Amino acid sequence: MIQEKYRECIEACISCMNACNYCYVSSLKEYELAMLRDCIRLDRECAEICAFTAEALSRSTLFAKEICELCAKACEACAEECSKHGHQHCKDCADACLRCAEICRKMSAAAA
Amino acid sequence: MIQEKYRECIEACISCMNACNYCYVSSLKEYELAMLRDCIRLDRECAEICAFTAEALSRSTLFAKEICELCAKACEACAEECSKHGHQHCKDCADACLRCAEICRKMSAAAA
Amino acid sequence: MIQEKYRECIEACISCMNACNYCYVSSLKEYELAMLRDCIRLDRECAEICAFTAEALSRSTLFAKEICELCAKACEACAEECSKHGHQHCKDCADACLRCAEICRKMSAAAA
Amino acid sequence: MIQEKYRECIEACISCMNACNYCYVSSLKEYELAMLRDCIRLDRECAEICAFTAEALSRSTLFAKEICELCAKACEACAEECSKHGHQHCKDCADACLRCAEICRKMSAAAA
Repeated sequence: MIQEKYRECIEACISCMNACNYCYVSSLKEYELAMLRDCIRLDRECAEICAFTAEALSRSTLFAKEICELCAKACEACAEECSKHGHQHCKDCADACLRCAEICRKMSAAAA
Repeated sequence: MIQEKYRECIEACISCMNACNYCYVSSLKEYELAMLRDCIRLDRECAEICAFTAEALSRSTLFAKEICELCAKACEACAEECSKHGHQHCKDCADACLRCAEICRKMSAAAA
Repeated sequence: MIQEKYRECIEACISCMNACNYCYVSSLKEYELAMLRDCIRLDRECAEICAFTAEALSRSTLFAKEICELCAKACEACAEECSKHGHQHCKDCADACLRCAEICRKMSAAAA
Repeated sequence: MIQEKYRECIEACISCMNACNYCYVSSLKEYELAMLRDCIRLDRECAEICAFTAEALSRSTLFAKEICELCAKACEACAEECSKHGHQHCKDCADACLRCAEICRKMSAAAA
């Protein structure tokens, strides 16, 4: 399949999308909601950018380099915010984001 | 994780998105392009609806029933078209579509 | 243009997406954040479904009937939630949602 | 509204998405289909990136600079391909792409 070279990156994006969306839904239910404003916003931002990146790679986008770099930046920003909070969903999200960022950075460099 | 009940369906949607997009890109390279007009169009249609469904389930959408039913319809239409053609990418796409349709139908019924 | 029959509906979806996203960003900044949990979630839900609907109609989707019906439901649910709150961004969002729901209902019926 | 500064750019992205999708659907119906392989692929690429950009700006994305730059690149590539063909839908698409690219470049610079 043409997307074989993208498989690892697509999977990392989907895992990260799931972790961000889980953190988003969970954060909206937390008692200390006010502390999580930026977390909620970045979770959505990162989830939507990961979903977009996965679909773009899946169709063998002509802009893999730029899109993977964008995705890496969003993942890094979301990881930084989530790592400030002690909730398990935030920790899990930060981990997924850092992993996705690393794979996207490699993909972006390879597509250069 | 909140999306545990959606995991199988999200994975089927991503697999189907990948198969549809691979069939799309491959069809655009075929010599007998004119026979594949409907295939190309349905591949895109189904890929985008599968991507949307996966992201919606991932955020625990309030409209899982309706979205999974829509996705099942798109998958069935794409499978029907792809099964008319002998290319391996069409056969693989039809298989992925039928599997995704079945899982989406079950999910839609469960969300009722 | 082929999408001429969809123009009004595409525009209503984009207006509604903008109103929902504005309400979303504004709600996340409100002091009484806890009262707006459902509003935030429905704003995102409705914004993403409206964006998806607009793009689908723009590509002359084969599933206009189903997608417009889904969009109408999401708009109605978001309008119901937003109309519970006194913020101007909630009122504006409810108005945009009701208008979009009405146009999507008509479009869905016409596509039957 | 918070997105006021993004209004012109959101509108240009939606117009470009519509023109790309119209060119896409029209190209798939042309007799000389084989000449339009790259046009079809770039139309889809550009339409999806424009739709993503509009939604991202609408939610006041934190990555406006990067996303608008990506969108400008996609629009320029699509304009270049479409300007090779004599069909009216290709010419209209190229015009919409060039206009959107210019506005996205300005937005990207302003968001720097």
